[in-house]
Amino acid sequence: MPADRTLIKPRLPRGLADRDAGAIRATEAMVARIRAVYERYGFEPVETPLIEYTEALGKFLPDQDRPNEGVFSFLDDEGEAGHAPARQEDWLSLRYDLTAPLARYVAENYERLPKPYRSYRQGWVFRNEKPGPGRFRQFMQFDADTVGAASPAADAEMCMMMADTLEALGIARGQYVIKVNNRKVLDGLLEAIGLGGAGNAGRRLAVLRAIDKLDRLGLAGVEQLLGKGREDESGDFTRGAELDPDGIAKLVGFLRSAAEAAAGIAAGGSGQDRADRQIIDEMRAAFGNSPAIVEGLAELEDIWEIVRGGGYGIDRIKIDPSVVRGLEYYTGPVFEAELLFQIPNEKGQPVVFGSVGGGGRYDGLVGRFMKDDVPATGFSIGVSRLQAALTALGKLDAAVASGPVVVTVMDRLRLADYQRMVTTLRNAGIAAELYLGSSGMRAQLKYADRRNAPAVVIQGEDERGRGVVQVKDLALGKQLAAGVAGHEQWKEERPGQFEIAEDGLVAAIRKILDA
Amino acid sequence: MPADRTLIKPRLPRGLADRDAGAIRATEAMVARIRAVYERYGFEPVETPLIEYTEALGKFLPDQDRPNEGVFSFLDDEGEAGHAPARQEDWLSLRYDLTAPLARYVAENYERLPKPYRSYRQGWVFRNEKPGPGRFRQFMQFDADTVGAASPAADAEMCMMMADTLEALGIARGQYVIKVNNRKVLDGLLEAIGLGGAGNAGRRLAVLRAIDKLDRLGLAGVEQLLGKGREDESGDFTRGAELDPDGIAKLVGFLRSAAEAAAGIAAGGSGQDRADRQIIDEMRAAFGNSPAIVEGLAELEDIWEIVRGGGYGIDRIKIDPSVVRGLEYYTGPVFEAELLFQIPNEKGQPVVFGSVGGGGRYDGLVGRFMKDDVPATGFSIGVSRLQAALTALGKLDAAVASGPVVVTVMDRLRLADYQRMVTTLRNAGIAAELYLGSSGMRAQLKYADRRNAPAVVIQGEDERGRGVVQVKDLALGKQLAAGVAGHEQWKEERPGQFEIAEDGLVAAIRKILDA
Repeated sequence: MPADRTLIKPRLPRGLADRDAGAIRATEAMVARIRAVYERYGFEPVETPLIEYTEALGKFLPDQDRPNEGVFSFLDDEGEAGHAPARQEDWLSLRYDLTAPLARYVAENYERLPKPYRSYRQGWVFRNEKPGPGRFRQFMQFDADTVGAASPAADAEMCMMMADTLEALGIARGQYVIKVNNRKVLDGLLEAIGLGGAGNAGRRLAVLRAIDKLDRLGLAGVEQLLGKGREDESGDFTRGAELDPDGIAKLVGFLRSAAEAAAGIAAGGSGQDRADRQIIDEMRAAFGNSPAIVEGLAELEDIWEIVRGGGYGIDRIKIDPSVVRGLEYYTGPVFEAELLFQIPNEKGQPVVFGSVGGGGRYDGLVGRFMKDDVPATGFSIGVSRLQAALTALGKLDAAVASGPVVVTVMDRLRLADYQRMVTTLRNAGIAAELYLGSSGMRAQLKYADRRNAPAVVIQGEDERGRGVVQVKDLALGKQLAAGVAGHEQWKEERPGQFEIAEDGLVAAIRKILDA
Repeated sequence: MPADRTLIKPRLPRGLADRDAGAIRATEAMVARIRAVYERYGFEPVETPLIEYTEALGKFLPDQDRPNEGVFSFLDDEGEAGHAPARQEDWLSLRYDLTAPLARYVAENYERLPKPYRSYRQGWVFRNEKPGPGRFRQFMQFDADTVGAASPAADAEMCMMMADTLEALGIARGQYVIKVNNRKVLDGLLEAIGLGGAGNAGRRLAVLRAIDKLDRLGLAGVEQLLGKGREDESGDFTRGAELDPDGIAKLVGFLRSAAEAAAGIAAGGSGQDRADRQIIDEMRAAFGNSPAIVEGLAELEDIWEIVRGGGYGIDRIKIDPSVVRGLEYYTGPVFEAELLFQIPNEKGQPVVFGSVGGGGRYDGLVGRFMKDDVPATGFSIGVSRLQAALTALGKLDAAVASGPVVVTVMDRLRLADYQRMVTTLRNAGIAAELYLGSSGMRAQLKYADRRNAPAVVIQGEDERGRGVVQVKDLALGKQLAAGVAGHEQWKEERPGQFEIAEDGLVAAIRKILDA
């Protein structure tokens, strides 16, 4: 190209990230452990493409302020031609989660799938949102779903599977908890304060989103978001749900008593394992006149009995009436997996790690495509977030992979001979490479070091004439070099370097690798 | 939802596909084998996101007739606000291959990467093109690239690695071939017929695309495409490159002699292994006055020597002057991996399977971002296409995975008890599930059969009172049932079914699984 070319800046759009070998290998190790648990639970893999019809995905993201945003969308050129303007069904979108595509898949293949249908999937999802620290526009989710089971046993199974998964990843009991709630309880509460009916859907969602921020903002912050709104430290103002003072008081009272009950559980003591069951009893006493709340509490009670029957105590799975989950499609039990240990935030302050996944029951989602509703429940893990947590815990410190043996190039006219040595090593199952750059021997040794090579192979004219090669054991060389006085002695002794016959190369390298 | 709801049709946009458990497991088995070879060659994984700035990807797709098409693009909401109309750098695109994003990655991280930098990556790519049989708008590629090595040894390594990969996947020697050519040779030819210079770039590409179709259309079809154009069986007309008769004659003559040389090689005989080297010699004699052709032939000769030095004969890697590769960014050696065996096409006719991947040298691609060009070469496997080939060969017939043990539900009020049995089995490492539907025992047994369960567990009131469970060995049951006279006898004998104490459940199931 000419020297005056216009250069393009090599950069990624905000909220997108590359992944290097360490990150990829860590994800793989993690995902393999998750899959092993899911397979043990009888779930099988299924995958859908990253692009779907926009209308098939629906609009269920929490951020309803911008109904046309949050999702990457584009027109389908392959739609039926000859009509203008573009019809709604000509729009395609990148999936924003793995649940909406699964609903489409189940509806499309309903007859041939076993019912209930247990499946899992891992994949990238996309949000066209404002990126921030730890907040990406492309991130990986790992989901498990059971479709066709209305029983709370299916929800209970999700919670138990999530607990098993976190432990399989090395997170100790007591370092995590799976919290369970029921949207029906929350819906009953909202109805009780006059927010029932289709006309109030937007305000209901605003209230749920406010409650969802309890962990982060505390009761006072949620109270502001239930009222006029809240200004954060940066001066950004979030409009509130604008409830009347009576409604705010009722909701805040409910959240306070839930928090107190949770605090009581955390404090421990005898009968602790029944403490969250007590929350159910107390709420039933307080809200017994709401059919929705009574139904929701009965389902929570069923889940409670099944998980306790399975041997999962309150240290692993517990009822928590403040759990919301932001997505709009949930219709029953909702779950949240939280990590309880602290890690330093960007400012170095210790903060509880918090949620690494969650889910719930979405009985209406498949029904968008079918004559009847199809019961379904699922759980989603935020893979990148969980990976950050496991990395902080040191659970993904994979052994540093040894690099390949580097066959150096002393004589550029003899590439074919050097290549033959490389091939011999590879055919023996040893990772090996030919130095492909154009630099001299010193740079080649430096390169081998950077590649974490266990050994380098050198053959000059003299060695070639005698049918031998020089092998340099880099680890041993480093070790021995520590005892070498100076460059002259080093040059004479060549620590870690030895000469062998060409046909002894594989055996010599094996010996170094085994050491 | 109300009964009169508007149903959305559950369907995928054209050219997109779901993947079931069998397909996912087959891909994984295949990809694991490919990776093992690449790691042995000293390549390390790296991944980039699926979205990039449109200008970073560039426009290198073969389909230059529609310069703004072929790629899924959308505006970046996160671009700097307050300017209209949208600037070029605000457009984002889904990647259409894995090479252009790698070039951006290398340029962005140039200083900290080892040079030469060997890497591999697997991922989805997208083409906004007309879908057809076997032609998808989302498909998976598996790439390996060496950046920072100008030496033909790097190109030779790509060819050898590809050959090793195909053999590691179970494709026998003789069932595949890696063909090598050089764009410089083709460019020299085009210059010789008066198509040199920047002004002829479009026509050069049209000619290369025509030659690229030699396998599919034969010499006569290519001749039409070099001239006025060609009408296919469906009546669609493709405009040709409109060369003058002399230019067409020269190109067709070149292609004919290349085909004759290739046919001579295929016919075998003594000295066969030097036959393609002879092609180089003959072409050098014919086109020795073109500096581009001479340079290209010298590189081909280097590659030839290195692969032969590595022990890769003409049955694995051979020179073929008709190989083009459609992408515009190639600057030197190009390669194509072809499967030589026949499989039936959609009409049941046997056809040679053909290309499953290819690549080449792209010395200018990283340089789009940097002051200087950076030499680079790479190889891309079409994963879906290769998987289709391996499936046709029966190389991915994974053992049918056994399903989970199904614990049935006789008494719906005792879900917690049944769940405890499931948990006991899972904790012993046995895949197990609780039946989560609402149907009776007969449907539950049918479900277990459909799930390919090795055994079902049954416990009614009677068994519970005696502290026992019924275990049904489904495989044994099927085997024994063959010898049972009728339903009455079956009901009495219950083939394959036996009773055990509850605490012997794990041992009994293990025995069935081991059988």
